[in-house]
Amino acid sequence: MTGAATDAALTKAAALMPEAIAAWSDFLRIPSISAQPDHAGDCRLAAEWARARLAGLGFAARLHETAGHPVVLATHPGPSADAPHLLYYGHYDVQPPEPLELWPSPPFTPTLVDGPRGKRMVARGAVDDKGQVAAWLGAFAAWHEATGTMPVRLTVLLEGEEEIGSPHLEPFLAAERARLAADAAVISDTNLWDFTTPAITTGLRGLLYVEIRARAASRDLHSGLFGGLACNPINELVQALGALRDARGVVQIPGFYGGVAPLSAEQEAAWAALGFDVAAFLGDVGLATPAGEAGRGALERLWARPTADLNGIWGGYAGPGAKTVIPAEAGAKISFRLVPGQDPEAIFAGLKQFLAARVHPDLKLDYALYGAAPGIAVATDLPVVAAARAALAEEYAKPPVLIGCGASIPVVESLKRVLGLETLLMGFGLDDDQIHSPGEKFELACFEHGLRAHIRLLGHLAARPG
Amino acid sequence: MTGAATDAALTKAAALMPEAIAAWSDFLRIPSISAQPDHAGDCRLAAEWARARLAGLGFAARLHETAGHPVVLATHPGPSADAPHLLYYGHYDVQPPEPLELWPSPPFTPTLVDGPRGKRMVARGAVDDKGQVAAWLGAFAAWHEATGTMPVRLTVLLEGEEEIGSPHLEPFLAAERARLAADAAVISDTNLWDFTTPAITTGLRGLLYVEIRARAASRDLHSGLFGGLACNPINELVQALGALRDARGVVQIPGFYGGVAPLSAEQEAAWAALGFDVAAFLGDVGLATPAGEAGRGALERLWARPTADLNGIWGGYAGPGAKTVIPAEAGAKISFRLVPGQDPEAIFAGLKQFLAARVHPDLKLDYALYGAAPGIAVATDLPVVAAARAALAEEYAKPPVLIGCGASIPVVESLKRVLGLETLLMGFGLDDDQIHSPGEKFELACFEHGLRAHIRLLGHLAARPG
Repeated sequence: MTGAATDAALTKAAALMPEAIAAWSDFLRIPSISAQPDHAGDCRLAAEWARARLAGLGFAARLHETAGHPVVLATHPGPSADAPHLLYYGHYDVQPPEPLELWPSPPFTPTLVDGPRGKRMVARGAVDDKGQVAAWLGAFAAWHEATGTMPVRLTVLLEGEEEIGSPHLEPFLAAERARLAADAAVISDTNLWDFTTPAITTGLRGLLYVEIRARAASRDLHSGLFGGLACNPINELVQALGALRDARGVVQIPGFYGGVAPLSAEQEAAWAALGFDVAAFLGDVGLATPAGEAGRGALERLWARPTADLNGIWGGYAGPGAKTVIPAEAGAKISFRLVPGQDPEAIFAGLKQFLAARVHPDLKLDYALYGAAPGIAVATDLPVVAAARAALAEEYAKPPVLIGCGASIPVVESLKRVLGLETLLMGFGLDDDQIHSPGEKFELACFEHGLRAHIRLLGHLAARPG
Repeated sequence: MTGAATDAALTKAAALMPEAIAAWSDFLRIPSISAQPDHAGDCRLAAEWARARLAGLGFAARLHETAGHPVVLATHPGPSADAPHLLYYGHYDVQPPEPLELWPSPPFTPTLVDGPRGKRMVARGAVDDKGQVAAWLGAFAAWHEATGTMPVRLTVLLEGEEEIGSPHLEPFLAAERARLAADAAVISDTNLWDFTTPAITTGLRGLLYVEIRARAASRDLHSGLFGGLACNPINELVQALGALRDARGVVQIPGFYGGVAPLSAEQEAAWAALGFDVAAFLGDVGLATPAGEAGRGALERLWARPTADLNGIWGGYAGPGAKTVIPAEAGAKISFRLVPGQDPEAIFAGLKQFLAARVHPDLKLDYALYGAAPGIAVATDLPVVAAARAALAEEYAKPPVLIGCGASIPVVESLKRVLGLETLLMGFGLDDDQIHSPGEKFELACFEHGLRAHIRLLGHLAARPG
C-alpha cells in the first residue's frame, strides 16, 4: 500500500463527506439507551444499522446475541492474508439523556448548529461513541470506494452495553477468541488534547460502580411520632457515605491507596509541559476551585489519582413543600475511578465493610455492582502507535501529545487480558463536548479530521512490515 | 345544661352514626393535598365541603381567603352569651399520598375494611385530620339534632395549610383576633395512649423544616473526565449533612441543646408508669433497635428530646443501571423536632453556618424554610381539661393518662402567642394509624368513641361555671 492509495482515499473522503455525515445522523436518531429496559428494541435497531453499514462496505457482518444487547461482529480480509490486522472496537449504546429539559434540541434529533469552531452536531451520542465510530466507518467507506478493498485486514466489534459496564462482553470475547485474533486493537472513544492538538491516550482510569440500597422500617413513618427512636435510612446512609472522604478529599476505605504508585518525576514533567489551564477547564463549566485530593496537581487528580464520586442519591420526599416522613428506604449510586495498582474487587469489599461498620443495626444494606475494571497503562512501542503518530502528525501538521485520561474504557483491560491485545487510543473529542450531559456535541471539524486520520492510520500501517 | 341533655345527644349520635360516617367519607374523597399546587382546587373544595356541613348544623360559616388555601371560620352562639366558649381548630388538608403503589386501595377512595379491632377506614386523611374533625362535626350534629343548639358557644377554625407549615395562619389569627375570642381551644389531632386507654396530650415537639439546594457546575459533568477536580454537589451535601450527628446520635450544631431542660424525676417516673413497650412499638414497623440519642429512655427520645431527620434527598441519576455523572445540583429536606427551650430561628441560622463551614467553595447553598415552631408544654389546670378528663373517663370507663407527643402542632403555639388561648389536645388516633404513610387508617371504634367523647366534653363544660 502506498501513499498514493492513501491520497486516493482522502480525495474520495472529501466527495463522500455529506454521505458520512448523513450516516452519522441516521445512527444518532436511534435512542439506543442501554440502561433503560424499554429501549432494548432501539439498541437492536442501532446494532442492525451498523451491521448493514459494514456489510455495504464489503465486510462480512452479523449480529451475535448475548444475554443483553447484541454485539455486531464484522470482518474484512483486506489485501492479503499476511497484511497487518486491526480490531476496531466501538459501542453503539448511549447514556440516558435525562434531564430532557436542559437540551437545546431533542437528544435524538441530531442537529447541526453553528458554534465558535464552525458547525457542530448536537445529540446524545454525537461523540460518545456513535460520532467517533461514524468517523472510522467513514474512513472505511473512503478506502472501499477508492480501492475496492481495505488496506489492512480489519475486524470490527461494536457492543451495545458499554455505558452499563459491558456485562456480557467478556464472555463474548472468550467465546469468540479465535475470530477476534488481530495484531492490535483501535478505539476512538477519547479526546484530542485541544482543538488543534492531536493526542494518543496512554493511561485510563478504571471504574468501580456500585448501587447501594438501604432499608429499615417496613413502611414510611411519621417523623414526629417516630423521630428519635426509629432508624432513618437517609440519616444512616448520609452519615456513612459522608465519612468516605476526609476534609482533604482522601478516601477513607482501608487499603484504598495501597497499590497506587506515586507520580514519576518524568510523568510529572511531561504533564507540566502540556500547560494545562485548570482555571479555564473549570471555568468552562462554571467552577473555580479544584476539588478532590488536596495537595495534588490538576492533571494528577484527573489522570493518576483515584476518586469517590456519588453519582446519584434518593430517598424520602422530593416534591414541593414539606413532608415529615422517615422513609422506609433510601439509595445511592457511587463510583470510584481507579488507577493501576488498585483491585476493584478488594475496594468493593472494603466499601461494604466500611459502611456496615457505620450504620444502625436496623439498617439493611444491599448492593448491585455495575462495573469493576482496574485502571490501565497502554503500551507505546507498537507499530500501530507509530502509525498513529505519523497519521496524526500529517493530519494536524503537529505531532500528537501522549496524555492520560480520567475516564474508563474497561474493554481495553478486557482486550488485553482475554485476547492478549494492546490498544491504540486515538480519539477526536474535546473536553467541552458534554458527553453524558444534556447538550452533548461533536465538532464537525473534529469528525472530519478524525475520519481522515483513520484513513491515514490504515495507510501508514499497511506501508509497514506486518 | 344537664346530664339528660348529654344523654339525649348520645342517643341521637347512635341514630346519626351512619350519616356521620358517610360525611367523613365524602370529606376523604377530596384530594386536598396542600403541598401540591395542582391540588389547590381540591383544597378549596374541601373547605367548601366543611363550610356547608357547619352551616347545616346552625353555624354562621364562611370561607376566608388567604394568600394560600382558604380558612373556614364558623361560629355558633350556643345557649347564651355567657356560656363557656370553645375554639375548635382542625385542618382539612392532607399529606401527599405517594408512593401510590404501596396503598392497599386508592388513597382518595375511602374504604371500610375489616381489621383486628373491627372495621377501619383506609384513606389519606382517614385520621389526620379529616377523621378527627369529622368526629367532632358528628358530635355537633348530634347536639344540633337533639337540642336545636350547641350546649356551649363554639367557634370553628379549619385551615388548609397545616401539612405545609401553616404559612398564612398567623396573619389570619392576628387579623381576626376579635372574632376568634374564646375561653380555650380544642384540637383533635393526637392519639389515644392505646386502643382502650384515653389520653390528654400535654406536650408537643416543635418543628423546623428546611429544604436545602446545592449547586456547583453549570451542567452535569462526566465523572471520568472531571472526577477528582470538579466539585460534586452530592459528595459535598452528604459529607456536610453526614457530620450533623455524631456516632451517639447527638446533633452537632453549636448551641443546639442550649435551652433544653433535663427530664424531671417526676416526669420520668410518670412516663415509666405508662409501661411503654418499646420492642412492640418498633416491632410493629419492622424495627428492633432504638435509634436516636444513645443513653436516653424511649419516651424521652420520642417526647422530650430534639431530633434531626433527613426527610428527603435527591441528586444525580436514580434510574436503572449506571450513569457516571457528577450532577450540577443536589438537594435535601431536613427537619428538626424541637423541645421547649429551643429557638427555631437560632437553630436554622446554626444549621446554615454548620453547612457553610463544611462545603467546597464552589458549592452554592440555597434554603427554603417550610416551618419553624418551638416545642410547647400545655397547661393542665383549665376547666376544659377537667371537662375532658371527666368526658374521657366516662366514655372509656377508665381515666385518661397525661402523655407527651413527639409530633408538632405548631398552631398550639400560635393560638397561645397570638390569641392568648390554652389548648386541650384530646385525640383518638393510634400509633399504627400510618399517618403520612401509605395505608393511613382510622379505627371505626376510635371514630365513634371520639365522636361521643366530644359530645360529653361539651356537656361537661356546659355544666361548669363559665
